[in-house]
Amino acid sequence: MSLRYKLVVEYDGTFFSGWQRQPQAYTLTVQGAIEAALSQICQTPLKIVGSGRTDAGVHALKQVAHVDVPEATNQKALLYGLGQKLRSKRIVILAAEEVPDTFHARYSAKKRTYMYRVINRSCPLAIEKNYAWHVAHTLKVDVMREAIHCLQGEHDFKTFQSRGCSSPVSVRTMFHTDVQKDGDLLTFFFTANAFLYHQVRNMMYALIRVGDGRDTAADFLEKFRLCSADSRTGVAPSDGLYLADVLY
Amino acid sequence: MSLRYKLVVEYDGTFFSGWQRQPQAYTLTVQGAIEAALSQICQTPLKIVGSGRTDAGVHALKQVAHVDVPEATNQKALLYGLGQKLRSKRIVILAAEEVPDTFHARYSAKKRTYMYRVINRSCPLAIEKNYAWHVAHTLKVDVMREAIHCLQGEHDFKTFQSRGCSSPVSVRTMFHTDVQKDGDLLTFFFTANAFLYHQVRNMMYALIRVGDGRDTAADFLEKFRLCSADSRTGVAPSDGLYLADVLY
Repeated sequence: MSLRYKLVVEYDGTFFSGWQRQPQAYTLTVQGAIEAALSQICQTPLKIVGSGRTDAGVHALKQVAHVDVPEATNQKALLYGLGQKLRSKRIVILAAEEVPDTFHARYSAKKRTYMYRVINRSCPLAIEKNYAWHVAHTLKVDVMREAIHCLQGEHDFKTFQSRGCSSPVSVRTMFHTDVQKDGDLLTFFFTANAFLYHQVRNMMYALIRVGDGRDTAADFLEKFRLCSADSRTGVAPSDGLYLADVLY
Repeated sequence: MSLRYKLVVEYDGTFFSGWQRQPQAYTLTVQGAIEAALSQICQTPLKIVGSGRTDAGVHALKQVAHVDVPEATNQKALLYGLGQKLRSKRIVILAAEEVPDTFHARYSAKKRTYMYRVINRSCPLAIEKNYAWHVAHTLKVDVMREAIHCLQGEHDFKTFQSRGCSSPVSVRTMFHTDVQKDGDLLTFFFTANAFLYHQVRNMMYALIRVGDGRDTAADFLEKFRLCSADSRTGVAPSDGLYLADVLY
């Protein structure tokens, strides 16, 4: 018999080759690091399932995973052990709670929220280097807000799907989008039932083209409605992207 | 003949053994890195003067320095060269402007503002690890605000002066103090004519003792008024500290 735990995880993607475990033992991944810690603590090989993958360099304020641990596992010892073993690795377990074995970190997820941070100034970044996308060209926030609003609702997001995406269906429901401005920091929010491969980074690149005047909001909408990978303009860097929340 | 330039500098203190140049060439300091870059560009040994030193791990949103470069130096080439040479080093020159040779980065400074970031939550930090002080015990912001207010005005700050401070006089004028709360992030601001060695970090440690209930605001005020190093309670970590502005 085993117990299923839901883990809520924060990590700094700068230090990892993404979420997903890689066959090469020398590649540091978030999943690999958590599995190694769990396996050591429980003294048996354990695998975890995440709500979704994040690319190299992408951060998480709140990633969710589940794991089945032997029933004899002491919850406090598990949490304490994880904290100790992950301390130096820029991974923090924010919460761990027992859940029914019908809970599935990926399939039970109803909504995911991604956040994307842009710093809009002429000078490059010293402190925020790995934590935001530096855009030097002055951005018009009002037209970006107009464009981002078009994304809300159920749509085919094929335009914003990168090659190599395993999903055969590219229709998703975008529940909420927002952009907030605080000085030279622009923070974008996207909440959907699920996201395609590179979807947020592709949308962000297209939005920046609107903000800097290369495209109008109408151009953005037209490319979006074409539902074609040929309309994709580019991919924003991973540094600015954060998995911000997963709702069940 | 030479030209004097005022440089405005941002840096991520995580990567440096502080601002001040060290005799050992292998110690990476902000001053040392900027001087090496300037000397290479101008092909002559150059020294810079900062508005003040920052300790290892302390960041700067806006440090100011001055340098005297040979008159033949091309301003655009200088700025471009600095950007290129410092790009990998987490130092960014935000601005460079010619100033009269009466301008002195340290002695002409009228006000300095430091910012200190605290993240108040039970779990340790993954993303903000080097950019804030993690305080797990719940802090009461209202009593901290009461205590921080006592610091305003002209006072002897000897209680908050660390040993090894070169300044014989510990009277300073605190023009402004503030604390802002945004979720679990607390941001403190201190503006004074000048600061003693470790002053902000010592004040912050004493303020956190008020916030977590170990001291009352009255205890804080009493220790402050004793003007004695024996009243100093401890020093907050450098990670949360930012030199935010220097006014002339």
